[in-house]
Amino acid sequence: MDKADCIFCKMVAGQIPVTKLYEDDVVLAFLDINPISDGHSLVIPKQHFEKLDECPAEVLAQVASHLGRIAAAVSSGVNSQGYNVLCNTGRVAGQVVEHVHFHIIPRNADDGVFNRWPAYKYEAGKAERIAVNICKNL
Amino acid sequence: MDKADCIFCKMVAGQIPVTKLYEDDVVLAFLDINPISDGHSLVIPKQHFEKLDECPAEVLAQVASHLGRIAAAVSSGVNSQGYNVLCNTGRVAGQVVEHVHFHIIPRNADDGVFNRWPAYKYEAGKAERIAVNICKNL
Repeated sequence: MDKADCIFCKMVAGQIPVTKLYEDDVVLAFLDINPISDGHSLVIPKQHFEKLDECPAEVLAQVASHLGRIAAAVSSGVNSQGYNVLCNTGRVAGQVVEHVHFHIIPRNADDGVFNRWPAYKYEAGKAERIAVNICKNL
Repeated sequence: MDKADCIFCKMVAGQIPVTKLYEDDVVLAFLDINPISDGHSLVIPKQHFEKLDECPAEVLAQVASHLGRIAAAVSSGVNSQGYNVLCNTGRVAGQVVEHVHFHIIPRNADDGVFNRWPAYKYEAGKAERIAVNICKNL
């Protein structure tokens, strides 16, 4: 997606209204207009990067430095018992807007928002083989 | 949970083996032993903090500064098409180990790992009321 067509860039530029929670030179936080729980918020770098791994380390660091206090404020603002912080990267992972964003999703017992966690065990040796392949790229 | 009983602190201390991906003075990254997709990894601050919002901003920043490149290496190491970065905070949100951790979960089309996204719209005025309550705490 080109930056000119990016809905989040238009929000940053003030061309699309947002319910703003926090803003500084680098970061914008606002309520998701299609929440999956009350208070569902987004924290984004103002600069346009499509994927988390395209976002420079120093920008990610600046975004993340605000995640804890924004998440705490969101959670207490809606009296939730917990929250998920989630960054989906790639359409297969649920990324809809192609501008890096961290969801803060307030959670409560038995809310049914997310409940799937299909954990399994690796067969012997598989974890080590995968780690070798990952570390080649690190 | 006390730090002395924390499984991640024991991994940091070398008392429990891990399949390590990356380590520096502040951050440890390793394969989750109960993956929900091949290559499912965890990135943690070495220091013990239970919740994301208890983690100092500078520690979060240092952890996050590595998230992009580790996620890219994980994703390419298992040839995935995308990934989720997820930090569950609180038992109701799926946090099992009470030491801050970011999951990196490789994803592919139709893998069925996560597929639920129960989005809705706020009634008129509700988003603004929620934002006021959140901003009181920011």
